[in-house]
Parts: sequence; C-alpha cells; structure tokens
Amino acid sequence: MKSKFKYLTIAMLIITGINGFAQTTNQLDLTQYVDPLWAADKHVWLGGHTFTGACVPYGMVKLGPDCNQKTTNSGYDNEGKIQGFSHVHVSGSGGNPKYGNVLVMATSGDMKTKNYGSMRKNELPAPGLFSVNYADYDIDAKFSATHSVGFHSYTFNKAGNANILFDLGSMLVWGQDGHWTQKLVGSEIRILSDREMQGYTRVRKGWGGGDAYTVFFYAIADAPCLKSGTWKSNNIHIGRQVEPDTNEPVGGYFTYNVSAGQTIRLKVGISFLGVEKAKQNLSKELNHWDFDKTVAENRGLWNKELNKIQITTNNDTTKKIFYSALYHTMHQPVNRTGENPKWKSDKPYFDDFFCIWDTYRVTHPLVTLINESKQVDIMNGLIDIYENEGYMPDAWSGNSYAMTQGGSNADVLVADAYTKGLKGIDYEKCLQSMIKNATVPPGEYEKKQGRGGLPDYNTLGYVSTNYERSGSRTMEYAFNDFCIAQVAKGLNKNDIAEKYYKQAHNWKNIWCADMEAFGAKGFVMPRDKQGKFDRTMNLNKIGGIEGWTYEGNAWEYSFFVPHDIKELIKYMGGAQRFEQRLDTFFTKSGRTGHPFLNDYFNINNEPDFMLPLYYNYVGKPWKTAEIIRKTIRLNYTLGLKGVTGNEDSGSMSGWYVFNTMGFYPIAGTDVYLIGTPAVSSSLTMENGKQINIKTLLPKKLKKGEEAIYIQSCKLNGQPFNKTWFRHSDITNGAIFEFVMGVKPSKWATDGALPPSMTEN
Amino acid sequence: MKSKFKYLTIAMLIITGINGFAQTTNQLDLTQYVDPLWAADKHVWLGGHTFTGACVPYGMVKLGPDCNQKTTNSGYDNEGKIQGFSHVHVSGSGGNPKYGNVLVMATSGDMKTKNYGSMRKNELPAPGLFSVNYADYDIDAKFSATHSVGFHSYTFNKAGNANILFDLGSMLVWGQDGHWTQKLVGSEIRILSDREMQGYTRVRKGWGGGDAYTVFFYAIADAPCLKSGTWKSNNIHIGRQVEPDTNEPVGGYFTYNVSAGQTIRLKVGISFLGVEKAKQNLSKELNHWDFDKTVAENRGLWNKELNKIQITTNNDTTKKIFYSALYHTMHQPVNRTGENPKWKSDKPYFDDFFCIWDTYRVTHPLVTLINESKQVDIMNGLIDIYENEGYMPDAWSGNSYAMTQGGSNADVLVADAYTKGLKGIDYEKCLQSMIKNATVPPGEYEKKQGRGGLPDYNTLGYVSTNYERSGSRTMEYAFNDFCIAQVAKGLNKNDIAEKYYKQAHNWKNIWCADMEAFGAKGFVMPRDKQGKFDRTMNLNKIGGIEGWTYEGNAWEYSFFVPHDIKELIKYMGGAQRFEQRLDTFFTKSGRTGHPFLNDYFNINNEPDFMLPLYYNYVGKPWKTAEIIRKTIRLNYTLGLKGVTGNEDSGSMSGWYVFNTMGFYPIAGTDVYLIGTPAVSSSLTMENGKQINIKTLLPKKLKKGEEAIYIQSCKLNGQPFNKTWFRHSDITNGAIFEFVMGVKPSKWATDGALPPSMTEN
Repeated sequence: MKSKFKYLTIAMLIITGINGFAQTTNQLDLTQYVDPLWAADKHVWLGGHTFTGACVPYGMVKLGPDCNQKTTNSGYDNEGKIQGFSHVHVSGSGGNPKYGNVLVMATSGDMKTKNYGSMRKNELPAPGLFSVNYADYDIDAKFSATHSVGFHSYTFNKAGNANILFDLGSMLVWGQDGHWTQKLVGSEIRILSDREMQGYTRVRKGWGGGDAYTVFFYAIADAPCLKSGTWKSNNIHIGRQVEPDTNEPVGGYFTYNVSAGQTIRLKVGISFLGVEKAKQNLSKELNHWDFDKTVAENRGLWNKELNKIQITTNNDTTKKIFYSALYHTMHQPVNRTGENPKWKSDKPYFDDFFCIWDTYRVTHPLVTLINESKQVDIMNGLIDIYENEGYMPDAWSGNSYAMTQGGSNADVLVADAYTKGLKGIDYEKCLQSMIKNATVPPGEYEKKQGRGGLPDYNTLGYVSTNYERSGSRTMEYAFNDFCIAQVAKGLNKNDIAEKYYKQAHNWKNIWCADMEAFGAKGFVMPRDKQGKFDRTMNLNKIGGIEGWTYEGNAWEYSFFVPHDIKELIKYMGGAQRFEQRLDTFFTKSGRTGHPFLNDYFNINNEPDFMLPLYYNYVGKPWKTAEIIRKTIRLNYTLGLKGVTGNEDSGSMSGWYVFNTMGFYPIAGTDVYLIGTPAVSSSLTMENGKQINIKTLLPKKLKKGEEAIYIQSCKLNGQPFNKTWFRHSDITNGAIFEFVMGVKPSKWATDGALPPSMTEN
Repeated sequence: MKSKFKYLTIAMLIITGINGFAQTTNQLDLTQYVDPLWAADKHVWLGGHTFTGACVPYGMVKLGPDCNQKTTNSGYDNEGKIQGFSHVHVSGSGGNPKYGNVLVMATSGDMKTKNYGSMRKNELPAPGLFSVNYADYDIDAKFSATHSVGFHSYTFNKAGNANILFDLGSMLVWGQDGHWTQKLVGSEIRILSDREMQGYTRVRKGWGGGDAYTVFFYAIADAPCLKSGTWKSNNIHIGRQVEPDTNEPVGGYFTYNVSAGQTIRLKVGISFLGVEKAKQNLSKELNHWDFDKTVAENRGLWNKELNKIQITTNNDTTKKIFYSALYHTMHQPVNRTGENPKWKSDKPYFDDFFCIWDTYRVTHPLVTLINESKQVDIMNGLIDIYENEGYMPDAWSGNSYAMTQGGSNADVLVADAYTKGLKGIDYEKCLQSMIKNATVPPGEYEKKQGRGGLPDYNTLGYVSTNYERSGSRTMEYAFNDFCIAQVAKGLNKNDIAEKYYKQAHNWKNIWCADMEAFGAKGFVMPRDKQGKFDRTMNLNKIGGIEGWTYEGNAWEYSFFVPHDIKELIKYMGGAQRFEQRLDTFFTKSGRTGHPFLNDYFNINNEPDFMLPLYYNYVGKPWKTAEIIRKTIRLNYTLGLKGVTGNEDSGSMSGWYVFNTMGFYPIAGTDVYLIGTPAVSSSLTMENGKQINIKTLLPKKLKKGEEAIYIQSCKLNGQPFNKTWFRHSDITNGAIFEFVMGVKPSKWATDGALPPSMTEN
C-alpha cells in the first residue's frame, strides 16, 4: 500500500515507548549543525549578541573574541580587529555590556600595551573550537575550553619576536561614564616564572549596576619565554614581575623568539575566589597539553546535550538554525557552584540570570524537559540567594542583583517547577520567598529586587502612574500572584492561595473598558493614584525602562494574562472579537526588530512570546500555525543576523526550539500548547523517557505550498483532539503523530480549550 | 599679693594668643598616661569593649589579642587564654562582633591546628606596643604596628621545636548561626618560601550584616624555618605549600628549631585589595627589622595626636582617664584610602563608621577641633559612598552598609561641618544626599540605609507604630530635618529650607500632652497610623532594636529635641517645670550600665549625652555642673571597667574629653555649651591656633569639697557671662579663664540662653 504521506523519521533512532522499556539513542554529531556565529550580530537593538567563542554547556569560562569592546555585548564583531580573547562573557544580552575579563593576545614584533589588536583571516568558530588567523601578525590562533579553563594555541608563522600578553584592564564597556558602564576597580599581576602568570581584575557595574566582582586567573604556557614584563596604565615595565593593585589597569607579557611555525600553548584557569583556586581548577580540569583532546571532549559534552533533541527534517536550514538555537539555550545561567565569593553554601550556585524576565518563558521550561536535575539545581541556587541575600533575583550577574525588568518572575519558575512536580526543591521556602516579593517593598530605586511600586499595588490593586513601568508591573504582578496562589494551594495553605488567586485578577484594575482602536475595545491603560485613566497615551506607543512598561505597549500588554485567557476573552468582548483583535494585531505587525521599531506584535519582545498561540483559546489552531510560521519566516535565518533582536540568554533560541518541535510551554503552569510541528523530533528526558513527535507530511507539495496545518493527531496511538496537553501527559514518554496538510483542517476546532484560572 | 586661687597651669606650654602669632607647643610624652586596657571589659552590656592592641591613629591594622573569640567584641578578655593576635579589629562596639582576621600564634612543641592558645603572664599593653608572655610555651611576645602592617617579635625562652602559625579560619563570632554572626566564606594560603607566606580570609556578616569582605596578607619572618605546612578544616598537611579556597578554613605554619632566647620577628602586611598590595604596603611602611624603631615611631604618632590637647591637673586619675579616652577617640573611622575594593576613586575612603548614630555627637566634633582636615576627608569619603552606593551611611563596616540605628545621622555631620565653615566639602552634593535620605524609602528591612518608616513620616508627620523604632525614628528625623534645613538655607535654597524647618517640628506629632508621671507632663508616646496614642506603655520602658525606640524610653526621648529646646520647654510647661522635670529625671537615675538596666538618665546611651547640659537652657549652669560631675564620678574610672557601657567607637571617650575640658558641642550646629572645667587645658587646632582654658581653683579645699561651680569667666580677657559660645568664637584661638568655687554662683544665670530653632 502506498501512502500519500511520508514521515520525517529520526535517523538511527531506536524509538522507545511509553511503557518504560530501556531507552537507547545513538549519539549523532550534531555540533556540525551549530554555527556559534548564529545570531551574533552586534547591532544594539537588531543584533542577537550571542556568544561566539568556546565554552562547555553552562560553562564558567566563555573564551571568546573581544573585537570592539566599545560596541558589543558578547565581545564579537564581524568587522574590524580582534583585540584578543577574554575568558568571561554573557550571551545574547542587551543593555550595557558585562564582563570581557582577563584578555589574552598573541602578537609578533615589538611588545605593545595598547592597540595590539589584529585584523583576521580564516575565522572559523565551532562548538569547542574557535580558530582564526591574526593577519597582522600571521599567527594561527585556536581556542577551546573546559568548564573553568581557557585553552589557547598560537602558531607563529613568522620567525622572530613574539608576545603573549594579558591585559587585565580590558573589559567590555559602552561610553566612559554611564550609570551602568563597567568600570575597573583594580587589578594585580604577578609573573611567577618564565611560563606562569597570575593575578586578577576587579570590575564594577555593567548592565544592572552590580557590585564589584573579581576574576582571578592562573596561566601556564608550554614553553619558557625569553623575557617578560608588566605594565600599569600606559607605563611598561620591562623585566618587572609584579604590579600590586593601586586601582589601575595592569598587564603582563611573555616574549619569545619563535621559529617559523612554532606553536605555543597556553592554559588559563579562572576563579571567582582566588588565584590558588584558579590554579586548582586548571590542574583538575586540564592536566595535559593535548589541545585536540580538549576540543574533542568539549564537543562530546555539546553532543551529549544536543542529542537530547534529535530532529528529522529535509530542510537543512531548519536543522542548522535548530541546533544553533539549542546550543545557545545552554550558555546561561552559568554553573558557578564552588565559585561563590559572597557566602559559603552546600547548595548549587548559578550566576548570570540575565534575566529571568526573559528566560522563564521558554529557556527554563526547556531545561526542565531535557535537564530536569539541572533545573532543580538552578532552583536551589535561587533559594540560596533568597536565603543569603534577601530576595530571589529577577536578574543576577557578577555575584550581584542586577535589574528587575518587570515582575518578580522567579515566582514563575517556582510555580513552573511545582506544577510539573520537580522533586528536591524546598517549596515551603520558595513560598516564603514569593510572599516576600509580594509584600516587602524593595526600596531605593525599586529595580534591584522584588516588586517596585508595591505599596500602590498592595493598596490600590494596581501600580499607579506615580511609578514608572506601572503598566507592565501591574500585569506581571497579577500573573506572579497566580503563580504564588498555585504553590500555596498545593501546599494546602488555602488562606494564602485565596488571597493571591484574588490578586491574580488585578490586571482588571487597569482595564479601561471603553478605549477603542481598530475595532478592538478595552485596553490596559495608565492609571493614576486617584483612579483616573490617562486616555491620551497612544495605544501603540512603546514603553521603556522609564516608561509605562518595561518593554511593550498597550496592545501587547493588554494580552498579557497568560493565566486567565478565558477571562481576558470576556473582557475583550467574547471569542469572535478576541479573534478579530488578534487578527488585527498580527496583520498590523510586520516590521521586525526591536520593540522601538515595531508598534504591534514583536517576537523579539518576550511578553509577546505566547501570543501566536492565543488562537488555540478560540479553537482556531490553524491561525496559530500561520502566525508561528510567519514569525519564524520573518525573524529566524541562518548566520550572523539569525534573529531580529537581542537573543536574550537563550530566549529567542528557546522559542524557536519549541515552536519548531510544535509545542509551547505556558511557563508557571504544567500546560503546553500545540502549535505546528515543522520537523519530526525525539526528545529524551533525564529519566530516559522520550517524547517522540512524528510529523507526517504530504509526499508532494506544489510550489509555494507548505504543510503547516495539523490535519489530525494521535497521542500514544489514540486520537488526540485538543490543542494542549499537560506535563504529566508526557513525563512517562509520549508519541505524538501529526498528519500535516497544506490547508486548514477542522482538527481540534471543537476540542476542549486550554485551561484558564477562572475555570479552576 | 597672695591669691586665694591657684591656676592649673599647662606645663612647658608656650601659651599662644588669639592674635595669630606663630604657635609652638612642646611635645610631651602623653602616651605614658594611656592605658589601652582602659574600658576594655568584655561584659556584653556593661563592658567598654575598647581595642587593647597596637595600632596607629585611625590605623587599618589593629593588631590585638583574640582571647576568646566567642565572647568578645574587641577580641580582648582579661581572663583565660590568648588564642593569638589578629590584625583587624574595631573598638568599643556592641552587638555581634566583627573582624578578628588573620590570626597569628607562636607556640613551642608540636604543631597544633586548634586549641593552640596560651595562658599569659606579664601582659603589658601600651600605645604602640603590646607585650605578653605566652606562659604555656614561655614565649615573650611583642606586637607593634604601622598603618597597614603588624610587627611581631617572639622570643622563645625554651630551646627546641617552635611554631608560628597563621589561622585564616579564625575570627570573632557569637554563636553558631545568628543572623549577624560572622561566617567564613573562604580562605586561601600559600607558603612562598621558608620565610614568607601569603593568602586571604573572606568573611561575611558580623554586626550590621554586611557583605563578604576579604583581608589579604603577606608575611615575612627574619629567619628561615626548618619546615612548614598547611591545614584545611582540621586536616594538617605537613610540607604542603598551598591550600586553594574551597570555602573552608585554612591555615599555614612555619616550624623552627630555636635556641633558648632566640627571637624571631615577623611582619604581616594587610590589604583589602590583594596579596601584592599587602606586600607593597609592607615594603613601603616597614623596610627594616628594627622592632624598637617601629614602637618609637608608633608612639611618636600617638604623641603628636595626644599633644593636641594638653591638660594640667593635680588629679592623676583624671589625667590617665583623659588620655586613655582621647586615645580611644582616634581608632575609628579607619582610614582605608587606597584600600577600597568596591570602587575606584580619588576621594579618601574611611571604613568602620560603627556607627554615626554614636559618633556624630562628640567624636566627630572633636575631630573637627583637633584634626579639621581629617574631618573634611571623612566627609568626602561619606559623599563618595553616597555617590557610588546610593546613600550616606549611618553605619558602614567591612566595605558595606551595616545597620542604621536611628535617624539618617550623616545629615548631622553635614550640618556640623557646614555650620562650622569647614572648607573642601561639596555641600550641594551633601544636600542631595540628605534630601535622598529624607525622601527615598530604603526598602526591604529598612535598617540598611536612609530612613526606615519614611512613607509614614512623610505622610503622617511621624512614624506610626506600624514600624519598629517609631518613637526614636520620629524624634531623630525631626532633628535630621533641622540639619537639612540649615544647610539648605545656607545654600540659599529657601524652599527646601522652609520645608525642612517645618518638618523639624515633627517631634510634636507624637507629643502626648496630657501624659503625666512624677510631676512631669507631656511625653512622646507611641502613636498608631490612625493617630491614636498607646497610653499603656510604661514611660520608662526601654526600647530596643525591635521596640518603640532603638535605645531609650519615653523619658529620654521626650528630651530629644536638641535643636529646639526653647520650644520643648514650652511643651514641657515652662522653665520651672522643665527644671523640675530634669531634677526628677536625674534624681531617679543612679543605677549605671546598659539602658536595659536603667530606667531614666543613662550616659551610656548616646541620646542622653547632652541632657546634663540642659540646665543651661533655664539659666542654671550650676545644676549642669553637678550632673556632669556626678555622671563622671559614677561612670568613669581607671582600668578595664573604665566606662559603664559599650564605649561605642570613641563616643563615651569623647564625652569625657569634652566634659573634662568643660564644654560640649551641640552636634549639627556651631554651638558649644559650657559645663564645668575640671582641668586647665590647651587645645591646638590644625590652623595652629589654640583654645586655652585656664581653670582657677581655690588654693585650699576642705575635705569633701569640690570646686565644680563656675564663679566667673573671661573670654580673651573680657567678662563672659553666657553658658555657650559659637565655633567662630574660638577658631582664631581663645583664652577662657574660669574661676571655680565650691558653691553655686550667680555666674551666667541671667545671661543670654543658648539658641533654639524657634528663635531663628
């Protein structure tokens, strides 16, 4: 019998069932599909800013190029000179840059303490290995990394004078004296021998305005230098061995007389505690000089992670974007267990939550699916921050609170873990922490911790325009309160649950029912302390750090009731008007890029992440499919410009990963919405069980046709007629079989709608 | 002609005039009168807790004995064993202890990593030199210090095995897991050679709950060791050279084979930046091994400071207490310029404001008189903290905000400096900082910065009982507001001045006019948000950290209107009732010690500091004299129990110094009140001008008689008939001549009363 359909089958995958049989998955080399330069564009709003260098999953050392420290967040710029490779970075961040510490550069000729950068040739980034030719010096440079150690290999193609220098004053900065510009506090260096150097750099601020952090290093080369020296500020000290810290930038260098083609390798151990710990990290993780071995091991770690989702598709572009995206979801938060200089603890320690406002929506739910114990560790790290520093953070970087963006969104992570049944988390303590967020004003400028504008919210039921971001704060706090309520209810604290379920309706307090635009009626609007709405605001005016929202406008934030869309539909005038409103919203969109450049739907803005799937709530999954595919088409491509805005620590990437597989998590709940699978996929969970999504496409498509519409679905062999499922439906493994078609179908148009709070 | 009186004359003093002639003062050895053990008793409430070890004035290194780390604040205990000498301490503090870092001990026999302490003999503390025999080992130990370096000298009287050990896990702690108990974060050690060792200890919390601070050290001995080793937690590692930081306590040791009587000297450089800076500090400050030279130089520094006030008295006890007290006023804040690990700055940096609530009243006004440029430096350091961290601190220790006690009392320091005309301070920036204190709630637990309970204060005009410490907060904020107003007025910001002058009346908002006790009518009382007074509270019930006041009761805080006593007198029913009320207050007092043990007047409680001089406001200076002398008699003695409560970073000491000279500063203003001079004194200001107070006593006194009453006074040769003067009256030098008598006189009973706000 000849089928009209073909399955996208998983190559070499031994499909496992839902019945608890032992699971085996062949490990593929999936790093081949990863482009570290994907979404690495430097443009301030339109660039992805992903990290391009060498690191292991969640690795502490991120050894990458600092090309133009004045204009990039990740250090990478595809134009101009490479100044050197430094050891600490973040990935995908916006705002003022952070890190770029302990920069190392190899040069030939005279030793220079500044302007030592080089133009490049043959730049080739890959997971676990970044290779490039420093054209100005004709040096072939290669970089790999373990968790805490950067491994450098420099082949000097020209004979003669060659230098390896350490610039401890180098870091990523914007401008000279911005409020959140990174500033050097001090640095120290000591040359220990003709092969060894150690020291630290201490830096303050960066995005979020954190406290001073100190990056210690110990470095060892595999060849003795001819001579060495140091510098402080711009004064070079030939032959000097030490520069004590006088709050100035210092550096040190080794000079060699190399033969043509001579390779010098260098290992640089990093620690946030001290130089001896840096040295210990190095000796524990890298007790050999076999560079290729380290590259292979690094790749092995990445392949292990990437293989947790194996996809089958004939679309090579999709495959490359998918694995490049999946790769970039595992850069942060950084595992810094054993490296916390602020307090001693037996709990895990993760840094660079940058920030949870971005990552709670898809990045952490993805971790929960493929790395559940890591998400448990992350949660325990967050609890530990609460216990030692006072609040769970919304943003935390460089061992400090950074800046809260909107709500107290660690609450969402707690509810997400709780509703999904993650074990090994003290939920009582979590609840304390959530209640603290909801009751104790954080003070001063109200953006470091907890909830800004809380006195208003807890008396008026909304944040008044006396406070900045009053719109997004009100909307997010209402959702956060829903998260608190769920956990309280689960812990049988019914009084607390009742209180916060009630507060989860607070979004209604800034609902201005008679505001109207393009047929849409009812918008959240700025409201003053006396209760008066500001009707003069443009509905599509974008907020901003000091504005009515953090990012987003009244069109976007009026949709932000992820926990109670049933009620939202009522407020928006019923299902039909809700659907029309979505149509208008998506139709008027189109321009891509940063929120400031887009007045309506904008996938680069995290509050919009779930909106394409809102059609599921009115039984129109085929419209969901259309918007998702359009969104991908317009916003995700190969290469440097892979995404159309800041990638945000794995957020844009995570969105792509989920929506390509065909489902989407409603973070803070155990519900997933079904979108439109573009590939067949097999996701292996930590318990060994698999979620297998078989996507059956028509064998032949006419030109321009795309089979984006689900025609039918089976779950574990049984017809499945809903656009959503729960985490418990998949934790013991699941097989979805989707039959796709080129035209909308009636599939799930009459199934049970996804749950909303008001039904509970 | 034979006079009935004799002057207490200043020995060897070339008296200088008010006319600007060059000043010369013979330097006396005044350190001979200083007892470092004065007021060093360890009792939690009744002990002074002064630092007993070696340091220079305002020195960073305070090398002192840690006798029983579990029960003392300064490390000193006159009983039991000495565990070793550590390098960082505070003086006079209460609450949870802080510091006690980088402990060094010398032992003989087998090397021990714990319980290595020794009983002592021949303990002899002196400025710049602490000597003691470690009886368990028969080692004569001597200790001196420069600003950043501890100098140790160990003479081993027994031949054989001897050890010098560094315990980086040692510190001062109370209990195991208190909220503010110091906790080790981590430590590192490296033995560099047979004479050198370096490392750090990182500690969190202590009083005020500050962030982790790191104390780095570099040590060098003058003799090579035979062998060395390290330990981590309780595991000794013989021969090991390094212990990387794994958040555990580590240590290191040198072992020697000494001949009997052999002396080994050791220098330990300290830094808060890094080990190389510690080493640099050592080499800059101590480039020799001449221990006695260091002792002499240290004493020279102390003599230079102590000679700024030369006194003449036949009472040797007074002289010893006076110089022991003056000595202890110069231990804090610590000058840590060039040692700030939090930000880079060209401003001075002072640490250990512990806390300004204690020290603004007398300690800083004393610095202003004898070390004006230092007070300017301190102010610039405080402005720098505001600019970099957000608020001027009330308490700051270990590079962190600690705990605010009452008001935003850095405001008082600003007003004090401004009204006294100190140059080189950016008062515009100070005003910004004061206004921030007064307008921006500090959030969270509201005791780290600024003003707790501010939303109440700024809406109701008082802090309601919804907040703890609502009584003392209201009273102090009103005074702080007066300070703001004065500075704003001086800077011609009349709107601001008017606003805060008005708020300076806010103490009236908790004035309960009809409360009555022992004839006194009208008390400040707890008031709730609705305006209702809590009349059930005992008026003499003492507050406390979580109570209605920080320290003090309704009797004490009802007097706390230092800026407007004229108005207070009105509220208390007029001059006669005010005087009677003071009589009652002082009569009912008598028990001494900590506030919890005293229901009325208590000189150990800083809010009471000015109260003995309140009689000046009703023209009864002879009553002021009586109370001052009685207070001194009951609360100040020689020796370990020198004061009857925590000495509070120079506060109890400063009170004694001023009141023995015979005047008292109203901090935050340019006014001084005259009390009763007990000595003749000559105070040399930084401009070289002198304040000479000549005190003429009757030649003969009957047994039991004391000439405490001023009979007449001349200022610069002219009769002076007021009980107060202004800073401008003395800045160009002044000669006061007081004729004293055994009976109250009419002096100044009809003179102009000291100024009050309501007269302005």
